[in-house]
Amino acid sequence: MASMSGTPKKSLMLFGGRAYPELAEEVAKHLNVTVTPQSAYEFANGEIFVRFEESVRGCDAFVLQSHGAPINQWVMEQLIMVDALKRASAKRITVIMPFYPYARQDKKHRGREPISARLIADLFKTAGADRIMTVDLHTAQIQGFFDGPVDHLWALPLLTEHVSRKYRGEEITVVSPDSGRTKLAEKWADTLGGCPIAFIHKTRDPLKPNEVVANRVVGEVKGRLCVVIDDMIDTGGTIAKAVSQLVAEGAKDVIVAATHGVLSGPAAERLSTCGAREVVLTNTLPISGAKEFPQLTVLSIAPLLAQAIQQVFEDGSVTSLFDGNA
Amino acid sequence: MASMSGTPKKSLMLFGGRAYPELAEEVAKHLNVTVTPQSAYEFANGEIFVRFEESVRGCDAFVLQSHGAPINQWVMEQLIMVDALKRASAKRITVIMPFYPYARQDKKHRGREPISARLIADLFKTAGADRIMTVDLHTAQIQGFFDGPVDHLWALPLLTEHVSRKYRGEEITVVSPDSGRTKLAEKWADTLGGCPIAFIHKTRDPLKPNEVVANRVVGEVKGRLCVVIDDMIDTGGTIAKAVSQLVAEGAKDVIVAATHGVLSGPAAERLSTCGAREVVLTNTLPISGAKEFPQLTVLSIAPLLAQAIQQVFEDGSVTSLFDGNA
Amino acid sequence: MASMSGTPKKSLMLFGGRAYPELAEEVAKHLNVTVTPQSAYEFANGEIFVRFEESVRGCDAFVLQSHGAPINQWVMEQLIMVDALKRASAKRITVIMPFYPYARQDKKHRGREPISARLIADLFKTAGADRIMTVDLHTAQIQGFFDGPVDHLWALPLLTEHVSRKYRGEEITVVSPDSGRTKLAEKWADTLGGCPIAFIHKTRDPLKPNEVVANRVVGEVKGRLCVVIDDMIDTGGTIAKAVSQLVAEGAKDVIVAATHGVLSGPAAERLSTCGAREVVLTNTLPISGAKEFPQLTVLSIAPLLAQAIQQVFEDGSVTSLFDGNA
Amino acid sequence: MASMSGTPKKSLMLFGGRAYPELAEEVAKHLNVTVTPQSAYEFANGEIFVRFEESVRGCDAFVLQSHGAPINQWVMEQLIMVDALKRASAKRITVIMPFYPYARQDKKHRGREPISARLIADLFKTAGADRIMTVDLHTAQIQGFFDGPVDHLWALPLLTEHVSRKYRGEEITVVSPDSGRTKLAEKWADTLGGCPIAFIHKTRDPLKPNEVVANRVVGEVKGRLCVVIDDMIDTGGTIAKAVSQLVAEGAKDVIVAATHGVLSGPAAERLSTCGAREVVLTNTLPISGAKEFPQLTVLSIAPLLAQAIQQVFEDGSVTSLFDGNA
Amino acid sequence: MASMSGTPKKSLMLFGGRAYPELAEEVAKHLNVTVTPQSAYEFANGEIFVRFEESVRGCDAFVLQSHGAPINQWVMEQLIMVDALKRASAKRITVIMPFYPYARQDKKHRGREPISARLIADLFKTAGADRIMTVDLHTAQIQGFFDGPVDHLWALPLLTEHVSRKYRGEEITVVSPDSGRTKLAEKWADTLGGCPIAFIHKTRDPLKPNEVVANRVVGEVKGRLCVVIDDMIDTGGTIAKAVSQLVAEGAKDVIVAATHGVLSGPAAERLSTCGAREVVLTNTLPISGAKEFPQLTVLSIAPLLAQAIQQVFEDGSVTSLFDGNA
Amino acid sequence: MASMSGTPKKSLMLFGGRAYPELAEEVAKHLNVTVTPQSAYEFANGEIFVRFEESVRGCDAFVLQSHGAPINQWVMEQLIMVDALKRASAKRITVIMPFYPYARQDKKHRGREPISARLIADLFKTAGADRIMTVDLHTAQIQGFFDGPVDHLWALPLLTEHVSRKYRGEEITVVSPDSGRTKLAEKWADTLGGCPIAFIHKTRDPLKPNEVVANRVVGEVKGRLCVVIDDMIDTGGTIAKAVSQLVAEGAKDVIVAATHGVLSGPAAERLSTCGAREVVLTNTLPISGAKEFPQLTVLSIAPLLAQAIQQVFEDGSVTSLFDGNA
Repeated sequence: MASMSGTPKKSLMLFGGRAYPELAEEVAKHLNVTVTPQSAYEFANGEIFVRFEESVRGCDAFVLQSHGAPINQWVMEQLIMVDALKRASAKRITVIMPFYPYARQDKKHRGREPISARLIADLFKTAGADRIMTVDLHTAQIQGFFDGPVDHLWALPLLTEHVSRKYRGEEITVVSPDSGRTKLAEKWADTLGGCPIAFIHKTRDPLKPNEVVANRVVGEVKGRLCVVIDDMIDTGGTIAKAVSQLVAEGAKDVIVAATHGVLSGPAAERLSTCGAREVVLTNTLPISGAKEFPQLTVLSIAPLLAQAIQQVFEDGSVTSLFDGNA
Repeated sequence: MASMSGTPKKSLMLFGGRAYPELAEEVAKHLNVTVTPQSAYEFANGEIFVRFEESVRGCDAFVLQSHGAPINQWVMEQLIMVDALKRASAKRITVIMPFYPYARQDKKHRGREPISARLIADLFKTAGADRIMTVDLHTAQIQGFFDGPVDHLWALPLLTEHVSRKYRGEEITVVSPDSGRTKLAEKWADTLGGCPIAFIHKTRDPLKPNEVVANRVVGEVKGRLCVVIDDMIDTGGTIAKAVSQLVAEGAKDVIVAATHGVLSGPAAERLSTCGAREVVLTNTLPISGAKEFPQLTVLSIAPLLAQAIQQVFEDGSVTSLFDGNA
Repeated sequence: MASMSGTPKKSLMLFGGRAYPELAEEVAKHLNVTVTPQSAYEFANGEIFVRFEESVRGCDAFVLQSHGAPINQWVMEQLIMVDALKRASAKRITVIMPFYPYARQDKKHRGREPISARLIADLFKTAGADRIMTVDLHTAQIQGFFDGPVDHLWALPLLTEHVSRKYRGEEITVVSPDSGRTKLAEKWADTLGGCPIAFIHKTRDPLKPNEVVANRVVGEVKGRLCVVIDDMIDTGGTIAKAVSQLVAEGAKDVIVAATHGVLSGPAAERLSTCGAREVVLTNTLPISGAKEFPQLTVLSIAPLLAQAIQQVFEDGSVTSLFDGNA
Repeated sequence: MASMSGTPKKSLMLFGGRAYPELAEEVAKHLNVTVTPQSAYEFANGEIFVRFEESVRGCDAFVLQSHGAPINQWVMEQLIMVDALKRASAKRITVIMPFYPYARQDKKHRGREPISARLIADLFKTAGADRIMTVDLHTAQIQGFFDGPVDHLWALPLLTEHVSRKYRGEEITVVSPDSGRTKLAEKWADTLGGCPIAFIHKTRDPLKPNEVVANRVVGEVKGRLCVVIDDMIDTGGTIAKAVSQLVAEGAKDVIVAATHGVLSGPAAERLSTCGAREVVLTNTLPISGAKEFPQLTVLSIAPLLAQAIQQVFEDGSVTSLFDGNA
Repeated sequence: MASMSGTPKKSLMLFGGRAYPELAEEVAKHLNVTVTPQSAYEFANGEIFVRFEESVRGCDAFVLQSHGAPINQWVMEQLIMVDALKRASAKRITVIMPFYPYARQDKKHRGREPISARLIADLFKTAGADRIMTVDLHTAQIQGFFDGPVDHLWALPLLTEHVSRKYRGEEITVVSPDSGRTKLAEKWADTLGGCPIAFIHKTRDPLKPNEVVANRVVGEVKGRLCVVIDDMIDTGGTIAKAVSQLVAEGAKDVIVAATHGVLSGPAAERLSTCGAREVVLTNTLPISGAKEFPQLTVLSIAPLLAQAIQQVFEDGSVTSLFDGNA
Repeated sequence: MASMSGTPKKSLMLFGGRAYPELAEEVAKHLNVTVTPQSAYEFANGEIFVRFEESVRGCDAFVLQSHGAPINQWVMEQLIMVDALKRASAKRITVIMPFYPYARQDKKHRGREPISARLIADLFKTAGADRIMTVDLHTAQIQGFFDGPVDHLWALPLLTEHVSRKYRGEEITVVSPDSGRTKLAEKWADTLGGCPIAFIHKTRDPLKPNEVVANRVVGEVKGRLCVVIDDMIDTGGTIAKAVSQLVAEGAKDVIVAATHGVLSGPAAERLSTCGAREVVLTNTLPISGAKEFPQLTVLSIAPLLAQAIQQVFEDGSVTSLFDGNA
């Protein structure tokens, strides 16, 4: 016999970084698989070691990491996991980063700056990633930083559904906390059925370019339920100020909605005291302990990730999952 | 003697595509060089041929093309010029595209679309480009599509200077023609000294997602000089409608300012009849013949390009040229 | 369960550029599939947009474009289609270019020229092409320009079969229109059963290198049926002159056979009036309207393409299709 | 029907270079396949030509070459085989080099030297290799020279099993012939059940750095069965001297064991006369004719290679084959 | 004038990461330059931002980072610095990592492990590094992980000079703390004038492979000054045990010498209490505060780095600096 | 001082492989440099080692190898030299291969063949070559196989000058020995002033495709001085037969001219006995000993190589050297 024949099988394996194991577990449960067991730890000097406990030859690998603090550690761990998978003959490697790290450094704001979001894409390509799956990129252009398929999931429906169900009947204005999110506000407005939008205009003194002179609300907010939206909330400063100002300008009520709850430093305190009635986030990043506060609602992103992984594995059509956001 | 020694020289050479030779000539004049003579023509079936008439060995090559219609032809010509320079041992190749082609396709708007702006960057890298120089990208993230230095020049000062000089004393509102340019409007407002901004909100029927139900002006425009700004004007439809609506809502006067005058099809007619008092553009793209109309002012981009080329050649500091836009 | 298993499927999808949709349709019919529906159009400034209407995840994509005029537009469209397929997770992308664009610029004829045929190969590699399928390359070395498999199909049997069937019993001499196609003439002669060959020798004045002093027919043509062969006919000038000269030197009859009918500008007129009894071409390029003339016979390349696509899809042996031409 | 569907098959094909066809045949027998027939020969000037006689489209190709003398010829032949497989659309190409060529040049020992072992990895990557399979690398770090999976097989069990079975009950000391193989000696000692180890310390005169002043045996060897181990034996000089010295220092008996029998020049003579009772090698390299001598035992590596190939083909777990050696 | 001419200049610029600014300052002083001023800080979520305060166009950039804890943060910072330099048109970028991070993961010890040392090399290549400068690699093969020049500096002379000057007249035995450093011990012995060497043999129970049964000193140590050598000291466990055992076996005195003082966790305590008379390290990593202890001597690596940088900048011969270690 | 400045120098260094050191010496003499001293030898198993004896940092390296037998050894040696130069920080590496190895395998003649000429280009690129310099490629398309500048020198003037000077006044016919070199014959004819050309037509039996039935001379040769031309002469079979046939068909005299004298096996005997009055070659390959014969004239290629190297080093115009051949 000249050659040995066989029928190829394909098998989906899910790998989870140590940043937020609960999310990987939740995704695994939705997929009815288990997270692949691995040894992962730091050496005394902080170097990370990873070893998978089961054969990964020929598998369709999905490597989930949640990029909270310490973010560089989790980036490096995921890179090392990808390298180990590549060298262990995984057939295809999909890197899942629900919150894309360094997404805000997506351009040079001034000369002699890095474009770290592109660097991240290149680092994962180099390590061996075939594809990237991510949720609500800070700017959609980041899709183009990766030389390969990017499955850009869209948490907007999750958030808008929650808001429209809970606040049915209210007169809503969608508010962008600054001039850069007006387009996102428009998308929200369209999804909520055509309500008005507003944004906060930061005026700067041309002689002192980095100093904001005044914040003006542009658009109609008085007596209305204002939904302040953003892709992420980091320290919460901008958002909290927006909420206060909206309250001051006569908003009936203010709620806040964003996909990524970075919630660094004073965020929890600011958000809980700024006057917002509710703050809605997803768990693309771990939110627990000091990050929690009474007004907070966290929606799980796991069902969306699980659904997308299954579609990718089965080469199914995912138009409905990604539509409007590609 | 074991080796032959020498002192390296460096020489700047400027190359111009056939799309808009006048711009290359103007840049050359500012640099006090001549455009390198070349043979460039199409074969009968449209295939482009290029040959340089002088030795280019070891030169620092700057290859200027202006990407007007037929845009694919001019992209291919510039790619072929770069290939010829690479194979003829040019030392460094800077591709100058004052108007970055396919900049609007900078992300997947829906599934199964290309990201042509990234493709363009990759094609030029493959052909042999070491660096890209461009003006006012549609989105600044496109800088990150190229794996190498991008000199992103900034025509805003050219335009704002013109407007602030000519309309000194007017009460200005900067207006974004849609929700996506609000941030640019804010930059304009900052540069003009802290004036208010507004934008046009397109409301869509959620049941008919591609149909705009109404345009609402968000912000204060009544009795003011409205400056409608954008990065480029293609068919002029959005801009012309914005002008009409501003007039209708009581603007004292409306002017339009944008960097790139694509001016396709009905643009000249629309812009000349929409009620705008002046339309200010630069010549990153050729504007002549049927594209001209009475209200049009064209500012030359050549001095900026020449200055940037010289700085790049001399490894000088270009902070002042690029600042604020990197 | 540690992992999810499945059986991989594979599916062939055919994509057609807008240059010559009839050819894609014809190939599709032979394969018993339909061409994948897509939106493809130009924006007002000529930028091309493509979007596929069906999921292409995991498919084995065959992307057919016919590179007639305007050739740069069709090259760019095919590049954009490949980019979209790559980003939409097609499993393998085969670029089909029945007529390889820029094939004549396969070397530097003099210094400071591009090698555009190599550039084309690199551009498609960069966009995401895994393989190329093409017909009768201008020079077979172009196979080596692409870093991957090239299926080089061979239309010669199609043409020789037509000629030998139709002109059975004639005393044939195969004639190369210049010194560069003598080897192809020899292949024809072998296939037709060992007939003589001839070629036209262009003599140049060494003092005026680009001026042809005289054309001499080298070889026996008097009283014979001369078959003038070439890989492509562009403006038809060389071919038409060859025919006239053969007639003048006593050929009994002259027919012309070539794979690619570029037929630019005056080609149809020249070929119809030069004295050729028949001109045989294939439809690797669209031939219709002003390109047609009475003596023209067009053989369809579609069955050959369909057969090759099927073999590639099924990993079948294609030795018989490609043999003699690799 | 929009697309044509099918079920992918996979087929293993084994290819053998001309350096040592017997090994490929032996592996094939274990796999129950035949070596794919090919034409392979040199042109008169030494250029190698290879052509496969059967279709290789879509196959999982395993390309075995044994890198004995003339080593550069066999490296080039294997590179050419890989190129031919890539261009003929093999699906995956695994390069099998039981003895990794140029493994000893795995670092710059002094300035201005090549790192040829890395070069070899890069050359095969460039030619089209997807993976490498090799046995007992000179240093395990060479795995990291290849950008992809390396299956690093481990012949140690083969050798230790032979030794421990044949010399059961002897008091063994494992001896490294120089300071660089002490770690390997420790592995042997562990496998043999915790016996002592020793090594030969070469003292150099600091004023004449390349001149060895004296060899001292460090460790306990008197009255014991010394097993001198190494990864390869080239000219046998170091090994033979070690054996003699061990005999002189009172070793009861000395045997030699190594994976790779390069056996250049005087090796056979040296090994047969140095006083070793047995020399155990594997056939990763061909050993026959003048290379043979009475004390020689050659263990076949073919079963290990066959087993590894099958596991790779079937995406099976190969932990047991590679364990301890990755 | 067809082109603008000029004389190229070259300028050396030194950049320092935030891990150990004192080392960069010290190197700068030796070079008589200043470290280039930069803004570098973390955003609230740990993302690093870097911006250089001076133009870096065309410079010969040397980017020094010291990879102590938190090591992943400093790796990422250096990658981001390189990205920023590449995009800001630095002419050449040399990455200086006195202690190469992840050097110990230079191979797969078992299946399904990463080769992180290769990954590090690839990440820096991807970010834009042209060359790497490093000191005393854990294994010299790591040089081959980078696709480009690696200047591998050699701290051995620094250490041996200190030891031989301070302990002149002592009867020295160089001791490797395990079987893997015997070759390094031999180098030391050669440099110190041909003294004996010894090593500690760890015996394992073959049934419990990861459990060390006993440590045996192989070689002559009684009554001698033992110099325990290694490339790095991390937690100090192995070294401290070696010292204790040597003392127990009658060594007259024990000193410890290594290039890299990682000194994690209990290292300072272990080293100060193990019985060593002196511990000699270099400052490739910051050693201060809790890492210090009475017996510690720290030699500065800065003069060596400065000298190497200057030679690289001037294309001088560096044979004497790198010799013996390439 | 923020940075250290300097004036760059550049230095040309010439490196020679061991295949034909006399040619490198001759080139060096013309350049007034010496060949850089190096250690180069084989290990006992044939692995090649190379080390340069002088610093090569920052040099403009020209690496000359002459690819005679054993050709694979010399290819590998040159690759290793390039790798060593890259790792030792040469600034630019030009690979000089007067005879391009594997040039005849420049396409797939049938399925499942390599394209070794492309492979060679890729291997040198991978090793670190920036440019290639070569003489009279078998087909000019090979220029396009390398991704970078190729200086394609042209020995034709050397040969034609010799012929036209020595045979002034003769009635010359230029003869291609088969149908594939007719175009080269035409170039010769043009250079010699417009003389006639002829070629030998090999007729094959279509039923036995590899069997030549008859050779017919096509063109006028009777009573004329026939100059049989080719790019290379390997075993000399085709050429010798052509000469005999021309003599038989009444040629007054026959001379042979080719650039590359491979002269394998029976070549010298065949050429010396076939009836040729003179055989003119260049020394792109070493010709000595058994390869010599009475009718042989060898012209030196060294002056041309030296001139080209100097022009490349000085970025001079080399139009006159390369013209007509690019």
